[in-house]
Amino acid sequence: MKNFTVDPELEKNSYFITDLELSKVYIKNDKENPWFVLIPKKMHATELMDLTHEEQCILMEEITMVSDFLKNFYKPSKLNVGALGNMVRQLHIHVIARYENDRAWPQALWGTTPSQIFEEVELENIRSNFQDFVE
Amino acid sequence: MKNFTVDPELEKNSYFITDLELSKVYIKNDKENPWFVLIPKKMHATELMDLTHEEQCILMEEITMVSDFLKNFYKPSKLNVGALGNMVRQLHIHVIARYENDRAWPQALWGTTPSQIFEEVELENIRSNFQDFVE
Repeated sequence: MKNFTVDPELEKNSYFITDLELSKVYIKNDKENPWFVLIPKKMHATELMDLTHEEQCILMEEITMVSDFLKNFYKPSKLNVGALGNMVRQLHIHVIARYENDRAWPQALWGTTPSQIFEEVELENIRSNFQDFVE
Repeated sequence: MKNFTVDPELEKNSYFITDLELSKVYIKNDKENPWFVLIPKKMHATELMDLTHEEQCILMEEITMVSDFLKNFYKPSKLNVGALGNMVRQLHIHVIARYENDRAWPQALWGTTPSQIFEEVELENIRSNFQDFVE
């Protein structure tokens, strides 16, 4: 993890939540669809297959933590989990709360723009709720 | 896995490839973007978090096998891996070969229709290549 840096494109419209064992966790500023992004702290990884098997297992634990948090706090109709990376190659995994009346349902949400964003204080609350939740 | 069945919607335009330890493996009939679907043999699972941690680790191994196969045989620009399930709730994971000149690049491919499909004999060859590859 030495010299690990996050691609600035991934930090745009995103708010840092916490550091887990493998991943840095961000939330995108989308109030309609609470949407986390996990970035494994491994330089030059672009695909899930670039992680060791052990790292992949930890990643699944971290996806499950974030999924649990979203289910508890935001009651989604469905979770969407994806590792795409067509625009930003650095490996990152989306975990998105979807609703049957959201702006893209039942299509994928990637590439669409939220019409409602969080206020700073709401993002701070999410950070503190998430940190309490995973402790 | 007793009484496990695949949602008929997932079998549409798809060709059965093989049974792995956790998942049934299908390929969608899309010649432009070779596209595998893994269906964990666990009834009532709709989210990745519905799998046990052990099953999640096996799933990552199987995603890696399919990813390796796609990289070797189809030289994609990028892999896209996703568990969405907005249309069909049964848990299924897409592993898609993407190209910088494909029909949706750099957007997600879900919801688009291929203009080129495989012939039966090509699908049979993929099945036999995949089985040899994972043996």
